[in-house]
Amino acid sequence: MPLEYIDTKYKPRNELICEYYLEPSKGISLNEACEHIAAESSIGTWTDIVTMNKRIATKLKPHVFSINKKTNEIKIAYPIELFEQGSIPQILSSIAGNIYGMKAIKNLRLQNITFPKSLTKSFPGPKFGIKGVRKLLKVKDRPLVGTIVKPKVGLTAEQHAKVAYNAWIGGCDIVKDDENLTNMTFNKFNKRVIETLKLRDKAEKITGEKKIYMPNITAETSEMIKRAHFVKDQGGEYIMIDIITAGWAALQTIRELDLGMVIHAHRAMHAALTKNPKHGISMLTIAKLARLAGVDQLHVGTAVGKMEATPAEVQEIEEEIEEKIMLENKKHHVLEQKWYDIKPVFAVCSGGLHPGLVDKLIKLMSKNIIIQAGGGIHGHPDGTIAGARAMRQAVDAVLKDISLKKYAQTHVELKKALTKWGE
Amino acid sequence: MPLEYIDTKYKPRNELICEYYLEPSKGISLNEACEHIAAESSIGTWTDIVTMNKRIATKLKPHVFSINKKTNEIKIAYPIELFEQGSIPQILSSIAGNIYGMKAIKNLRLQNITFPKSLTKSFPGPKFGIKGVRKLLKVKDRPLVGTIVKPKVGLTAEQHAKVAYNAWIGGCDIVKDDENLTNMTFNKFNKRVIETLKLRDKAEKITGEKKIYMPNITAETSEMIKRAHFVKDQGGEYIMIDIITAGWAALQTIRELDLGMVIHAHRAMHAALTKNPKHGISMLTIAKLARLAGVDQLHVGTAVGKMEATPAEVQEIEEEIEEKIMLENKKHHVLEQKWYDIKPVFAVCSGGLHPGLVDKLIKLMSKNIIIQAGGGIHGHPDGTIAGARAMRQAVDAVLKDISLKKYAQTHVELKKALTKWGE
Repeated sequence: MPLEYIDTKYKPRNELICEYYLEPSKGISLNEACEHIAAESSIGTWTDIVTMNKRIATKLKPHVFSINKKTNEIKIAYPIELFEQGSIPQILSSIAGNIYGMKAIKNLRLQNITFPKSLTKSFPGPKFGIKGVRKLLKVKDRPLVGTIVKPKVGLTAEQHAKVAYNAWIGGCDIVKDDENLTNMTFNKFNKRVIETLKLRDKAEKITGEKKIYMPNITAETSEMIKRAHFVKDQGGEYIMIDIITAGWAALQTIRELDLGMVIHAHRAMHAALTKNPKHGISMLTIAKLARLAGVDQLHVGTAVGKMEATPAEVQEIEEEIEEKIMLENKKHHVLEQKWYDIKPVFAVCSGGLHPGLVDKLIKLMSKNIIIQAGGGIHGHPDGTIAGARAMRQAVDAVLKDISLKKYAQTHVELKKALTKWGE
Repeated sequence: MPLEYIDTKYKPRNELICEYYLEPSKGISLNEACEHIAAESSIGTWTDIVTMNKRIATKLKPHVFSINKKTNEIKIAYPIELFEQGSIPQILSSIAGNIYGMKAIKNLRLQNITFPKSLTKSFPGPKFGIKGVRKLLKVKDRPLVGTIVKPKVGLTAEQHAKVAYNAWIGGCDIVKDDENLTNMTFNKFNKRVIETLKLRDKAEKITGEKKIYMPNITAETSEMIKRAHFVKDQGGEYIMIDIITAGWAALQTIRELDLGMVIHAHRAMHAALTKNPKHGISMLTIAKLARLAGVDQLHVGTAVGKMEATPAEVQEIEEEIEEKIMLENKKHHVLEQKWYDIKPVFAVCSGGLHPGLVDKLIKLMSKNIIIQAGGGIHGHPDGTIAGARAMRQAVDAVLKDISLKKYAQTHVELKKALTKWGE
């Protein structure tokens, strides 16, 4: 019983829909490649088998319902029975698994997934989301300002805490560990958390503002859970996870423990998957998965800093993680997605940011973002406190609709930052 | 204090060494790109910062000690203090993290990592390894023969168990779930395990051979642990994990729980990272990480089936996961690696295999492999039992040094398989 998966008249209904960029290997037609992809990602294999039956072949068969021979974009609708509800690993093993490795395929990129209602609702989504985070920080409508302690690694726990303290009293709301700083010989996790939260309390007293520390708990899952509990016991409200290098199973576990802590998601390694426009997985897809899994804050790029991605791409990602309904936009591979009661995720812009970029950034990304600068704060000629001040001044200028240049005339820290890094 | 990371006279000693393929973006020189990569993967950032100090800049600085301007291959030596012992997520967040996403880089591929002694020894490695698996199965020196129940998904738990039973009594040692079969509405995990292990017992009685079932426990970590315990309680000795879609943190957690169960690692999604020769991470690197983390069996490719990779690549991967010492081989990006007391991993060959390929496969990969065929068994014209017989006959033929064609003259199942699929 040879199956045929292509049916361009098929109208999907309540199915999981994937859009792929698909480039067949030499000698293989696009249609053949479509059949391979649809089979290997669902119920098929490379030869006809005696164990297939009619129920499976009719009820579980996916349909390739759209093939664009000019752009090599195809769409496949998968019956939801092919997926385990609430399991990102199982979903990826299906629709982003073996298919990448097939000889018949030269390049394959998962551009987007639309999750139907029941699958969407099988995930918890963020515990706090944008509203919850704003409530915790008592900051209603300005962008949040954060920093990463720099250098990335190497400071002792005490030095780390001191840099964090300076950032807070200079004006940062948030201080985070870097993606490669976990439990190091020169800077033990527990000690760092104790020292840094101690100075957080002091910074809160001095400034009268709520201050946040996001310790990087990334490790194997049991250790992550231990570290999360430790942070909570010490009075922390946040944890940070490198979601790609730790992996989806661990992220889902941490979220589903429901610790009552905000989850900040760093995306280190995403570009090994997302950078090539012809192969891998789009950042938009990763962002959707992260929202479903339930991160409260997610790095989405900057469009203006040291990391790659066009402004339009970064805007689409922000929209996808913030909106209640995402409408189809064929130009950017955006498929319709209803988010139901899954809360919006706070978009984090980070990577090569400095005060001189803040006006462009807010214009592109709105005020509903977390602006995170590492070098752009600790690289200020007068140090971290001045750097944090300069960043807050830049934000204030934009909110008051005054140009950075003009605002810098009366704000010396901003002025020095603009002199060093330009606008 | 601007850092400089390139020093081609530098001799690494007891450091973690990475080989990358590195293609700078337009307008960036290879040397500049090297500086960006070395900085972002360790202690640097995009601007000079006041919080840097001399201790960090001297003791934690990595060295780019080899740059091949013809091949764009570079090597970096990283001080081990940059890494958390025993943490694959932290190591990847460092040397395979943000660097992929930098604007300055067009393409970047992590070709290989050499782990120095202390880091290597900070991982458990396999609990059983090749010897332990052979002892459990009481099969001394022939390749193990396995199948995947097909269709990939769709059978009920009872149907699944029956297909497994047929494979066992036909001659398969091992039956595994497919990578996308976990806990489905039509085939619940617990029921499948109960039914399948029941028929395993029966197959063992009838054949007098040890038979193995590898249920796919892939899920979020807590659920995976629950499923593993359930399998153990039901008398199973094996678990299977989709290590890339579940992620490294979860894999390490399962291994470190030390459940006394053999871990079979499926690599679905690896080729999203490994397929592009210029970007991502090599399969060799993933295989090394999997061995460190402690899988007992790992899919490495077939070199002769439906999945991509040259014979030489697949052989190198097999050697890397089996040998005690891996010697440098510049042609295939193999760096020297001493494995100390980390046990060898059983190489699993799977993907488009059938009896007609067994002679070539064993010649390429040795007898120390697990030959796994799904379609190549259940697609046999006379069904699963005959398919499994044909596969064992093919293995017997090779062990007796008789050509498949000749052996088929007296073995009807093999003959029908060769007629269907060729040699």
